[in-house]
Amino acid sequence: MKSIRQQLRSELLFLDGAMDIRLMEMGMAPFAHPEMMNLVHPEWVYNVHREYLEAGADILRTNTFGVNGWKCSDVKYQQIIREGIQIARRAAAHASTEEKPRYVAFDIGPSGAKPMEEAIPSFAEMVQIAEEEGANVIFLDSFQELYEMKAAVLAAKENTSLPIFVTMAQSLERDPACFAALMEGLRVDALGLQGGTNPNDILPLVRELAGRCSIPIIATPNRRLHSPAEEFALDMRELMEAGAHLGGGSGGTTPAHIRCMAKRCDSLHPAVIQQEEITVASSYAIAQRIGGGDSGSLMVGERINPTGKRRLQQALQDHDWSYVQREAMAQGESGAQLLDVNVGMPGIDERQTMQEAVLAIQQVVALPLLLDSARPDVLEGAMRVYNGKPVVNSVNGRQRTMDAVFPLVAKYGGVVVALPLDEGGIPETPEGRLAVARKMIREAAAYGIEKKDIIVDPMVLAVSSIARGAVTALESLRLIKMTLQVPTILGISNVSYGLPGRANLNAAFYTMALQAGVDMAILDPGCEPVRGARDAYQTLCGLDENGLRYIGRYKR
Amino acid sequence: MKSIRQQLRSELLFLDGAMDIRLMEMGMAPFAHPEMMNLVHPEWVYNVHREYLEAGADILRTNTFGVNGWKCSDVKYQQIIREGIQIARRAAAHASTEEKPRYVAFDIGPSGAKPMEEAIPSFAEMVQIAEEEGANVIFLDSFQELYEMKAAVLAAKENTSLPIFVTMAQSLERDPACFAALMEGLRVDALGLQGGTNPNDILPLVRELAGRCSIPIIATPNRRLHSPAEEFALDMRELMEAGAHLGGGSGGTTPAHIRCMAKRCDSLHPAVIQQEEITVASSYAIAQRIGGGDSGSLMVGERINPTGKRRLQQALQDHDWSYVQREAMAQGESGAQLLDVNVGMPGIDERQTMQEAVLAIQQVVALPLLLDSARPDVLEGAMRVYNGKPVVNSVNGRQRTMDAVFPLVAKYGGVVVALPLDEGGIPETPEGRLAVARKMIREAAAYGIEKKDIIVDPMVLAVSSIARGAVTALESLRLIKMTLQVPTILGISNVSYGLPGRANLNAAFYTMALQAGVDMAILDPGCEPVRGARDAYQTLCGLDENGLRYIGRYKR
Ligand SMILES: [Zn+2]
Ligand SMILES: [Zn+2]
Ligand SMILES: [Zn+2]
Repeated sequence: MKSIRQQLRSELLFLDGAMDIRLMEMGMAPFAHPEMMNLVHPEWVYNVHREYLEAGADILRTNTFGVNGWKCSDVKYQQIIREGIQIARRAAAHASTEEKPRYVAFDIGPSGAKPMEEAIPSFAEMVQIAEEEGANVIFLDSFQELYEMKAAVLAAKENTSLPIFVTMAQSLERDPACFAALMEGLRVDALGLQGGTNPNDILPLVRELAGRCSIPIIATPNRRLHSPAEEFALDMRELMEAGAHLGGGSGGTTPAHIRCMAKRCDSLHPAVIQQEEITVASSYAIAQRIGGGDSGSLMVGERINPTGKRRLQQALQDHDWSYVQREAMAQGESGAQLLDVNVGMPGIDERQTMQEAVLAIQQVVALPLLLDSARPDVLEGAMRVYNGKPVVNSVNGRQRTMDAVFPLVAKYGGVVVALPLDEGGIPETPEGRLAVARKMIREAAAYGIEKKDIIVDPMVLAVSSIARGAVTALESLRLIKMTLQVPTILGISNVSYGLPGRANLNAAFYTMALQAGVDMAILDPGCEPVRGARDAYQTLCGLDENGLRYIGRYKR
Repeated sequence: MKSIRQQLRSELLFLDGAMDIRLMEMGMAPFAHPEMMNLVHPEWVYNVHREYLEAGADILRTNTFGVNGWKCSDVKYQQIIREGIQIARRAAAHASTEEKPRYVAFDIGPSGAKPMEEAIPSFAEMVQIAEEEGANVIFLDSFQELYEMKAAVLAAKENTSLPIFVTMAQSLERDPACFAALMEGLRVDALGLQGGTNPNDILPLVRELAGRCSIPIIATPNRRLHSPAEEFALDMRELMEAGAHLGGGSGGTTPAHIRCMAKRCDSLHPAVIQQEEITVASSYAIAQRIGGGDSGSLMVGERINPTGKRRLQQALQDHDWSYVQREAMAQGESGAQLLDVNVGMPGIDERQTMQEAVLAIQQVVALPLLLDSARPDVLEGAMRVYNGKPVVNSVNGRQRTMDAVFPLVAKYGGVVVALPLDEGGIPETPEGRLAVARKMIREAAAYGIEKKDIIVDPMVLAVSSIARGAVTALESLRLIKMTLQVPTILGISNVSYGLPGRANLNAAFYTMALQAGVDMAILDPGCEPVRGARDAYQTLCGLDENGLRYIGRYKR
């Protein structure tokens, strides 16, 4: 028999439609919890499932959507879940054939924002039950918050081996790129959109997801009010043509809608799933493309790093998060497009401090973060609480480090900064650094980490100690970029360590790095010469027609 | 019969030795002018010439060395010159064979510093007589001042078609590179050194000249006191092996010295004359290599240019040369390695002003100058009075301009800045600019201007009017440098014309130009960010071990 993961790669699959309308038609009181029917009228639920299967659905969602929202009460929600899965399994088994297997997706809706530490165990309990009862898929349905969705995915990954499908509730304000980056990073099996006032509301979003994702796309729109099933079917066909691979209905849809849809889409070939090579880091609100395209080189704020900063050291010791938040905001106002967060210093619990710092910063700044530590346990803690797809800064080519960090990236998602140094130290030559970087990309692939999720830092050593530190860095950057076709990152300020006139050196090195094609630079965006170097570079590159942006910034 | 120019390219040639010792031995009073003997004892002079011919000399210097020094007196110096040449011609004709032709070189010594306007007509009169009387060569003997030598060479070029040989009096303080640059630029046929306390004094200088020049080298040292002729001969052999092509004697040498030398050197093959590809501009005291080598990119001070500078405009109108001199000195103190001089403005006699400016600046600053004008007549005036091998800024690819400027470079010597624009305007693409530059190099070759004496300015247009102005300039620079292997120059400040925050843009563009390999940059060396860009670039390129120079400049 086929598996659902195999089918997803080669076929269009149909989901079912809404449960509540049919249950009400069968006699359910308008304000009842539909999930309660699993206990009080299981035959109604069974019959609705049978109708959808007859209409052509490949996948049934269990009648459990609302449980997550009210299970804090004393209702026997575990029992409702078990019954819901069993009812769907009986219906699916009845209709399943070798040719057209039918699947049961354990349906979980959102519960509203909860602290990560409470959300994960709660989801964990439910998905464990679902796997015990024989569900085929974990279906995170119509979530509103990425952060809760992340908690649910982590719970599913940590407690089951079932495929994970996720849909976001359609919302015009929400950037689907953040959703895609985070969920693909977390390795879900399919992702998509739910809701809208009609299927056309999600059409542009489905298109955008299809252009960004290398996994199947789900579309479960609401039906348009006062419109026939046939119209819904035509809209669904359009969504499938736009790139959706799994189609079904949400609010207002009935077996008639699914039947029409299945007929209309029967002859379609599924859209080809591209392997997108775009590198993206994200927060809950901003998906930042790295390398390629028109984004230009990105500025990463370096200031949240206690090395040599007394005031920040004190703030970290005192858990004075408002100071850290102000530093984060100030860097954003100076033009930083991402922020590096490093709390490594003696005398603190680095893992705990890092988690608190990340949470505090994400409260006030929407910029994607670089989680910066040499310690894998600190990286793990930060990745767990981070809301988005982070940049993990960094992993080096030592086997022990790769063995510790790559599994974290595979689990939590993220773009990883690779430092091409290994057991032999930092290679002196660009060719040596290229060789280590290539080895690291190969090793990462063994963990399912694609090359697009690797940024190489060719490493700049201070010219005060290594005269060719800057030259070697730039030569390595050019060689690695050209040969491996990966984005690159450089810590600009390292170059001037131990010298006076650092801003001047940093500005010149930044200009040189920009010219060499660096994709991200870690620096102090509040340092005028450094910021000026970037403004000038963009103007000189003709990216600022007639210098208007430059004039706006520099006119007296 | 062979010509002396042909022989120079393939054979070692011998000059004669001193005249005065033998004349005194024959009866001349110790304090007499030896040249007077041409009138009162022509047979003595004839006999000394015959002795040198018998000793093996190929070239006789006429007994006229001192005339230039005392001809302001009322003595009939013209007659002395005519007789001197006739005596030498009779002796040479007697000894000349098809196999070994003998030549007469009209010998002129220095007269001491004179204003250019007086020196040239005075030399002109003498060389006209020499050509009338049938001399084969103009020999400028033992000059002390490059400027006077330039005047004499110009007089010889303007009034005769004879080959020109020049020797400088050896002096440890004088840079032979300035001498070589100026004289090769002026297209003399051979150049060399005279004097010293013994031949070894000039050995390192002859080596340096041989390494720099693409023309034959002359060595006419003094004999060492109290040493036999054989020792002189061995020393001369060493000089010939070191690169000299014409050997003879100065103070204290006799026919015995020349005979020994001719024997000792008879079996030597002449040193191969390399076509040196080094680009050099010079003043009277500094020979500045451009491109290649360790010199790095050169800073050219831009401030002597009245465009947009009220104070300088006023100074030029008032002939206030002390203001111009202060500007020149200040730029030198800020690190400029050459200075651009442009006096183009309405309401002045540009040619006259340019000449005065060049003379005034050379009084106080030893840096080589760029003579900057769009007008060929202004360039001519400046080149005429300039003491050294200038950079001529500039010529463009319009046929009319090339026809006007290239003859000036061929006559006065100089390195010419080629602007790759022609009748079709400024090409938009790097390939277009390359094509014009290539055409200009070909056209220059027709005037005997070698590629090494051409610097290409790929031209930067202000980004405020042409968004890709900087990008195209740098792409053109890279393409032209790589394809044509010529040095390049850029006017840095042009890029920011019409924008605020110019220093910031100029500094970034300078860094980018340095990275692209620009060999000279015209800029304001007193502008801190611009100067800082260069300091940083050198430190970042590893040219400043441990950043010590940088620390020296930037430490608090
Ligand atoms: Zn409910
Ligand atoms: Zn409720
Ligand atoms: Zn005298």
